[in-house]
Amino acid sequence: MNPVSVPAPISGGALAPELLADLAAASRILAAQGVVDGFGHVSMRHPAAPNRYWMSRSLAPALVTADDLLEYDLDSQPCNAGDRKSFLERYIHGEVYKARPDVMAVVHSHSPSVVPFGLVRAKMQAMFHNAAFLAAGVPVFDIRDRFGATDMLVGNTEKGEALAETLGTKDVVLMRAHGSVACGPSLQTTVFRAVYTEVNARIQHWAAALAAGEPLAGLDEEEGVLADSVNQGAGVRAWDLWRAQVRAQAGW
Amino acid sequence: MNPVSVPAPISGGALAPELLADLAAASRILAAQGVVDGFGHVSMRHPAAPNRYWMSRSLAPALVTADDLLEYDLDSQPCNAGDRKSFLERYIHGEVYKARPDVMAVVHSHSPSVVPFGLVRAKMQAMFHNAAFLAAGVPVFDIRDRFGATDMLVGNTEKGEALAETLGTKDVVLMRAHGSVACGPSLQTTVFRAVYTEVNARIQHWAAALAAGEPLAGLDEEEGVLADSVNQGAGVRAWDLWRAQVRAQAGW
Amino acid sequence: MNPVSVPAPISGGALAPELLADLAAASRILAAQGVVDGFGHVSMRHPAAPNRYWMSRSLAPALVTADDLLEYDLDSQPCNAGDRKSFLERYIHGEVYKARPDVMAVVHSHSPSVVPFGLVRAKMQAMFHNAAFLAAGVPVFDIRDRFGATDMLVGNTEKGEALAETLGTKDVVLMRAHGSVACGPSLQTTVFRAVYTEVNARIQHWAAALAAGEPLAGLDEEEGVLADSVNQGAGVRAWDLWRAQVRAQAGW
Amino acid sequence: MNPVSVPAPISGGALAPELLADLAAASRILAAQGVVDGFGHVSMRHPAAPNRYWMSRSLAPALVTADDLLEYDLDSQPCNAGDRKSFLERYIHGEVYKARPDVMAVVHSHSPSVVPFGLVRAKMQAMFHNAAFLAAGVPVFDIRDRFGATDMLVGNTEKGEALAETLGTKDVVLMRAHGSVACGPSLQTTVFRAVYTEVNARIQHWAAALAAGEPLAGLDEEEGVLADSVNQGAGVRAWDLWRAQVRAQAGW
Repeated sequence: MNPVSVPAPISGGALAPELLADLAAASRILAAQGVVDGFGHVSMRHPAAPNRYWMSRSLAPALVTADDLLEYDLDSQPCNAGDRKSFLERYIHGEVYKARPDVMAVVHSHSPSVVPFGLVRAKMQAMFHNAAFLAAGVPVFDIRDRFGATDMLVGNTEKGEALAETLGTKDVVLMRAHGSVACGPSLQTTVFRAVYTEVNARIQHWAAALAAGEPLAGLDEEEGVLADSVNQGAGVRAWDLWRAQVRAQAGW
Repeated sequence: MNPVSVPAPISGGALAPELLADLAAASRILAAQGVVDGFGHVSMRHPAAPNRYWMSRSLAPALVTADDLLEYDLDSQPCNAGDRKSFLERYIHGEVYKARPDVMAVVHSHSPSVVPFGLVRAKMQAMFHNAAFLAAGVPVFDIRDRFGATDMLVGNTEKGEALAETLGTKDVVLMRAHGSVACGPSLQTTVFRAVYTEVNARIQHWAAALAAGEPLAGLDEEEGVLADSVNQGAGVRAWDLWRAQVRAQAGW
Repeated sequence: MNPVSVPAPISGGALAPELLADLAAASRILAAQGVVDGFGHVSMRHPAAPNRYWMSRSLAPALVTADDLLEYDLDSQPCNAGDRKSFLERYIHGEVYKARPDVMAVVHSHSPSVVPFGLVRAKMQAMFHNAAFLAAGVPVFDIRDRFGATDMLVGNTEKGEALAETLGTKDVVLMRAHGSVACGPSLQTTVFRAVYTEVNARIQHWAAALAAGEPLAGLDEEEGVLADSVNQGAGVRAWDLWRAQVRAQAGW
Repeated sequence: MNPVSVPAPISGGALAPELLADLAAASRILAAQGVVDGFGHVSMRHPAAPNRYWMSRSLAPALVTADDLLEYDLDSQPCNAGDRKSFLERYIHGEVYKARPDVMAVVHSHSPSVVPFGLVRAKMQAMFHNAAFLAAGVPVFDIRDRFGATDMLVGNTEKGEALAETLGTKDVVLMRAHGSVACGPSLQTTVFRAVYTEVNARIQHWAAALAAGEPLAGLDEEEGVLADSVNQGAGVRAWDLWRAQVRAQAGW
């Protein structure tokens, strides 16, 4: 993955301790909110070096501390891994950052309520204002289309590119028989989106069951744009709560 | 929202510390019971000044303390906010208090089991005696009907008025693609109703799935009136439990 | 309910402290397992005086201690209440004990997964061996049939009698738009049945959804009898776990 | 079960303390993950003596410590039980070890999301890569087919043999109106499979509801083989998390 013959990429510079703490906290928040379990990961683009990003070494999200965070270039090669093992699927992150200069953070997860929407024809829709970012549409990436039978993992540059292409300009992409990816203009908004994609999925399951085939009166695209804009400000209220809960539990 | 050119409304007088503690506890109870998450709010009409109400500054409900509570007039202008930020949707509360002199407390939430009933034709019904207050019917407010495409928030007087109009004389109103509002003759009964609206929603989802299109044998209106009257007394048992849990956790 | 003109019934004798502790623990176990919330109750027939039973004063089940337990005669009149308030629905217990000499304990609850089965034509069935006691059939009591529109509560002798009649020789009876009652030959087995009625309901909801109208391959009556007999012994394993959890939490 | 006239089988040798601790931890992990409740069990083949296995005495899984672990021969006769009671269904374990030399650990459970798949015609499928081990197919064992009406328990050698036969070369077998069995080449992988069988079941319930009768785009067999191979390595990340949680809670 990072052959010894290639020198490790140069660091974009140290991250401020508060940012490292926030990124580690984001990982634990996603675990506490049921978005990730033993698997899944969150990354953050380097604020001062847009061609670098930070994410945890290969570790269960609930266990991540600031010391576990590694820096990568956008080809997902680690700058400072030493003997620490990287996530096989870090290419998801690198390729989304490459394709989407507006994206500052990425979450990859397999939350149980979300996975079903990658397995059926029914489309995920924005069921309530908190999930307004979904109203623009939620594409589904089927790795089989371009790569045939695989181990289902986005474990190299080509697969990451294909995924980023399916994501396009949206905020969330589903992955068939696997999970999903959420992204956004800040770490806080991206965590918010990952959490409310999961909540929205739960709502849509019940709504679809009640509707018995009739359309659901979710947000239309215009409402989605208007509500998402408010969420990007008001969403910090949720981040503040979750961040405080991690602080109370982990002490940082 | 509260332009500097308009003087802040005069306070209706300080609330007793026990009442402030109860209102803050109500906020945490709603979080603990899964009715609110990082969002949602509960308010209480000033018992001595019916044209004033109290609710938290803009803050996640699980974090609210008595010190975060602000007083508002019924136009939802804060009496004593200082530099503390108000909830955008406080107009829900003010306008319900204006339209409904019998209402002493209001809860606004987006609980995942309830949202689906604002997205489909199926009506929420009273599935069991604890939710008797629903047997009178649960109207759905669609902000789009009068205001077209919006950010979905009830963020001004006009929208609050329209919502209160749809609520009418009922105890709960659903908001399309958003959430719901519960109200009642006391803080305790209102919290009870917010909680059991959520529980009832869960029951109705499963009941509807089992019924496969046949009617559900929930409470009829007469049973609803009779059972609700008992609940308003017996419901204190639930409040006492929830209040004790907040006391054990937060110490007040 | 217990008019002053009628002398309180004479006690059947003090209960051993271990039994009082077990009955209070049963109350907390049911709360911890999600069978009861702020409402619901468990009682135990007096082992030495079959025409007396013990249950908590009117109190949320998670808060019950041995000191809250009161003794009743089978007309559900308290022997030793003093100024402590009794549950309105204690008649459920007294009338089941009257009608069923084999029953040594009774649980009344409104668990959300169970209520739906009282609202539809679909019958609750025994989905797995732990719920073998359901294979004999689960009748539904509709208070409306004999009493018309009511507050839905079994709040007097006549209503209790009618409920006990619908229960017949079974172990569980559903109450339309209300909840259910479980009973058994010991406190431990009755708690086991109340818990596994709830678990079974969850399983049946999902099984029914998958089956799409086809029959479910649950236990037949003969399998039910055979498996229930084993459960009455093996079930103590669950009680030992739950009892240990109460002990760890409450210290008794 | 182990008649006094038959001498107890000879031990295959003591297990290393770390292995005993891991096996006891596995039991608690399964409880913490909702795979087992008061019932269910996990066993491990003796690494140095393939005709011996270790599992807990009859005890709720959440309470198991290393001191509760007993050694059995493959006829499920205890080597060292003393007066400690064995699980009635240990024959599941012994007979799977006999029939499947590749299997090093076995879990038996009745998790509520899984049981429905043993009651209907719909087949459990692999909904996402973590459950790749299901893509080879999940057979259903109906004890009634060979043994008629029973207590539903696999409580002797013949029933264990029949179950192992239905399992065949697969990793998971469902048991009608009872539960399931998962197995694998290590304790860690087997626990992983038991947990993700439960998670997969939850995903499939929702996916099936959304699909309304259309096929689900889960993993095909080839994808299943490829993904499972990765999981057997990456799965240790989940084990490390769960093991750390037991360590934090129980101190070992």
